Amino acid sequence: MKKIVRIDMSSLNVSEEKIADDLRFLGGRGLTARIILNEVDPRAHALSKDNKLILAPGLFSSTTIPCTSRLSVGGKSPLTGGIKESNVGGPVSQKLARLGIGAIVIQGQPKSGSYYIINVTSSGRVDLEAAKDIQGKGNYETVQELFKMYGEGVSILSIGPAGEMLLPTATVAATDRDGFPSRHAGRGGMGAVMGSKGIKAIVIEGRTNDEKTEPVDKNLLKDCIKEFSEMVLKLNKAYKQYGTTSLVNFINRSQGLPTRNFSRGTFDGAEKISGERITEIIKERGGKTAHSCYHGCIIKCSHVFNDKEGNHITSKLEYETVGMLGANLEIDDVDTIAKMDRLSSDIGIDTIEVGATVGVLMETGYVPFGDGQEVISLLGEIKNGTPLGRLIGSGCEIVGKAFGCRRVPVVKGQALPCYDPRALQGMGVTFATSPMGADHTAGPVLPGMGKLDAKRPEGQVEFSKKVQTYCAILDNFGLCLFVSPSPKTMGFITKAIKALYGETISENELFEIGKEILRMEFKFNEGAGLKGVDDLPLFFRQEPLPEVGSSFGVKSEELRSIKTYFVGI
Amino acid sequence: MKKIVRIDMSSLNVSEEKIADDLRFLGGRGLTARIILNEVDPRAHALSKDNKLILAPGLFSSTTIPCTSRLSVGGKSPLTGGIKESNVGGPVSQKLARLGIGAIVIQGQPKSGSYYIINVTSSGRVDLEAAKDIQGKGNYETVQELFKMYGEGVSILSIGPAGEMLLPTATVAATDRDGFPSRHAGRGGMGAVMGSKGIKAIVIEGRTNDEKTEPVDKNLLKDCIKEFSEMVLKLNKAYKQYGTTSLVNFINRSQGLPTRNFSRGTFDGAEKISGERITEIIKERGGKTAHSCYHGCIIKCSHVFNDKEGNHITSKLEYETVGMLGANLEIDDVDTIAKMDRLSSDIGIDTIEVGATVGVLMETGYVPFGDGQEVISLLGEIKNGTPLGRLIGSGCEIVGKAFGCRRVPVVKGQALPCYDPRALQGMGVTFATSPMGADHTAGPVLPGMGKLDAKRPEGQVEFSKKVQTYCAILDNFGLCLFVSPSPKTMGFITKAIKALYGETISENELFEIGKEILRMEFKFNEGAGLKGVDDLPLFFRQEPLPEVGSSFGVKSEELRSIKTYFVGI
Repeated sequence: MKKIVRIDMSSLNVSEEKIADDLRFLGGRGLTARIILNEVDPRAHALSKDNKLILAPGLFSSTTIPCTSRLSVGGKSPLTGGIKESNVGGPVSQKLARLGIGAIVIQGQPKSGSYYIINVTSSGRVDLEAAKDIQGKGNYETVQELFKMYGEGVSILSIGPAGEMLLPTATVAATDRDGFPSRHAGRGGMGAVMGSKGIKAIVIEGRTNDEKTEPVDKNLLKDCIKEFSEMVLKLNKAYKQYGTTSLVNFINRSQGLPTRNFSRGTFDGAEKISGERITEIIKERGGKTAHSCYHGCIIKCSHVFNDKEGNHITSKLEYETVGMLGANLEIDDVDTIAKMDRLSSDIGIDTIEVGATVGVLMETGYVPFGDGQEVISLLGEIKNGTPLGRLIGSGCEIVGKAFGCRRVPVVKGQALPCYDPRALQGMGVTFATSPMGADHTAGPVLPGMGKLDAKRPEGQVEFSKKVQTYCAILDNFGLCLFVSPSPKTMGFITKAIKALYGETISENELFEIGKEILRMEFKFNEGAGLKGVDDLPLFFRQEPLPEVGSSFGVKSEELRSIKTYFVGI
Repeated sequence: MKKIVRIDMSSLNVSEEKIADDLRFLGGRGLTARIILNEVDPRAHALSKDNKLILAPGLFSSTTIPCTSRLSVGGKSPLTGGIKESNVGGPVSQKLARLGIGAIVIQGQPKSGSYYIINVTSSGRVDLEAAKDIQGKGNYETVQELFKMYGEGVSILSIGPAGEMLLPTATVAATDRDGFPSRHAGRGGMGAVMGSKGIKAIVIEGRTNDEKTEPVDKNLLKDCIKEFSEMVLKLNKAYKQYGTTSLVNFINRSQGLPTRNFSRGTFDGAEKISGERITEIIKERGGKTAHSCYHGCIIKCSHVFNDKEGNHITSKLEYETVGMLGANLEIDDVDTIAKMDRLSSDIGIDTIEVGATVGVLMETGYVPFGDGQEVISLLGEIKNGTPLGRLIGSGCEIVGKAFGCRRVPVVKGQALPCYDPRALQGMGVTFATSPMGADHTAGPVLPGMGKLDAKRPEGQVEFSKKVQTYCAILDNFGLCLFVSPSPKTMGFITKAIKALYGETISENELFEIGKEILRMEFKFNEGAGLKGVDDLPLFFRQEPLPEVGSSFGVKSEELRSIKTYFVGI
């Protein structure tokens, strides 16, 4: 039986409770949603003592199943005002799960200005220590200091200056297997929630490669892992070869690469920032490709990107970052983008949101499109907490309001990731309807999926609602999105449950778990006053994307049917 | 039959249409709501060509009935994202109504950066002229220039730098009878909507004291005006004597005067900023009390406030301004507050929102409480459009997000006016439930009204929903709020309709008009995704007001019943 560790930051008291048997199939996003819905008043201020920060490893994070070290970081979002599950890799999830921890629930609030380090020791004990020396530091320096204090083997969740400033786009950084704070629970400002709880860092001891869940049927598990691994490897060849930036050329060809604040779908400089080109540069400079962010990942989509002198710059030059800070801002210099990425990681701020926000600022003429040095200087403003920095760190919608921009690519206050909904209508459906706000990981619908024409509205709603359900299930079990949100994966999960726990669960029953997660999320949002499921900015319906010649065409009634599907009328 | 003047700023075309007979009882807020609901996509960006700015005189503005020159300024609000009717005095409404204009509908959008003056001539013709010379100027200089160009007798609606910067708290200023831009359609950023239409000013020729609506029964009208005037004069003795600032002492005694960002309900310096004290100062310096902002007002709640040298500073030193920029910021110097008021008028920004916003900024420690000079310097930042100025000009909610404040007094993105909902629970009900967001004019419930205990939740919902309906009716007919939203006034309106038009309308039928206005407003907000009616920040429910010892206690279910009352289930 797994436990919940509850840390009350008002009293600095740590307690433990068992997870009830009827919740045994909830982990990660499912457990997060359940705890938030049951324990957080949806009207609570996201930065108040009444919000809770939940850290929940996926249900399979303790097993030998590959690609399962995904941690759900959840709470009420200061960005969207709704429920949020932000998902992150690195070894943290494996370590917590192997300590028998189903979730860490952080509640209450210490006296203002007090910052703590939470230390989860290898015996599973949780200690709270004053964070005085690392307060105010960037994530890179923070983890360096913590490795000195707690040893090189620990994994760390931390916030940078953005989280300490309680900015609504602040991330929770997670160290990767190399000890860089390169993985981020990026979306929805979970770093600000962590900051509001007075927590600078969570240091997790423990190991990733032993003390696994003992399966009921080892052979069955072995067989189904084998079959699953083959499928996953076949699906992810491009990611292994070129990282997630393999999407740059793919999405550009699909005419859905947001360019110049979502005013075009193809970028002239796409080739220069493509995965193919980035891979060449990495190889020239002695970096790494086909790198995994945690032990047990077979997809290996990570990069290690060095500068011309061979110094490490970033290990997360992801598609979303390159697209939103590159194409969307008309910047085609990879080194400049990598520097922005490094700075964003250090400050602890969501690169998707920064890219969209600066895009809006550029559209108003405040900063010229294409000026990478200016963007780097804006990131410095965030780090220094200037009024302009605080504005940008508050996200796209707020900058749109403060600068009077009419074309603001957000849903429920959260910026669109790097997919134009006019060329990728199914992705647009997910953006418009997900309880998370615009979020590609909530239900990605890419060209070629479901035999749909990505540029046509037909069939997208049916497809998106299924993929959204599959994604909720992946996030429940700690499976990386790239294993693919598909019926095949669902089949694998039911087999793995049989092998691990000896329980038979039908694919239908599994699907219902996914639906229930979404139902809980919609329900929380209802209470928080976020009821819309037709929230895509109108300009996507009005302005045809030049290359495609048409605009977002999925009918509002159809979008609304998604909420009915999950919560009833 | 009245007409609608439609100005398309995309084509610069002006057209006219008759108002249909079945809409003959809609004016002001009612007509505004009707046009917005029927013609504006609730998902439209408030600053886009798809929003419309409606200027609608109250239905009685063309008559000899006193206190009826109230103009409704409406559209989708860039601040709340919902429908907005912002109401303003001065002679504009009378003049438009006497020209037979039921509403001016401004739609579309000119090329970015082009600003126009709309000139409504004394013959009712509407001309568009380039605004080149006055672009960028404050409201005071703007109207001075326009008086030179169009003659001293015109009345003017204008925007200041805030409106040109499209800030979500920008006002539409209206000249008073002395030609000062002292009256403001202050709430919800209608100045930004006007700015987004490329309109710097609307100059209205015409007269206020002739060409009235010819009543069907002159004697009956005379009789009922006499009775009505007696009632109004009796009710408003304090306003005539001390202006609206007579409320400072009253609300302070009621323990509901927001102090130190709504952390207390009484202010030690209340006496120093009271109406009584302000009146003394005005008299010492040769200013004016018992001043009316338009011909035909018998309440005369305005002040003309001069500095020590006898120079005019402001004619709108209102309770809300003095309270929010005074008590709420712990500033007790009237001259400093008057200077802030003058600056706010000139910049064209809502003093309620500025007061609440700076209160939040002070709570975070960014600016010290009580520092009036600092507030004056912040107003300069707004005028200059610095990032900090744009932040403050974006309102309380946004500054709360950017600076990580947990106690943010807003509903639907709009700051609370100067009444603490814990000491004035009925006002809290109106704030929580009005489709306008927190707005005292949407349904004021003051101590002593309805025989209720203002500090207790009992009966407040029933009372607020009636007062909200009465207020919608007052706003429909162009009646000043101070004639009182009461059954007596409703009785007067039905009699006046009989005398003016010869039509019999029952008080029930009149009440249904008010309900229908609210129904339309709720309906628009539904489409815009603003569905909540339980939106008062949770801290008002959690933190007892020290002087009162209790917090806001009206149950959520009761609040929700208000929406059911207006729109059904």
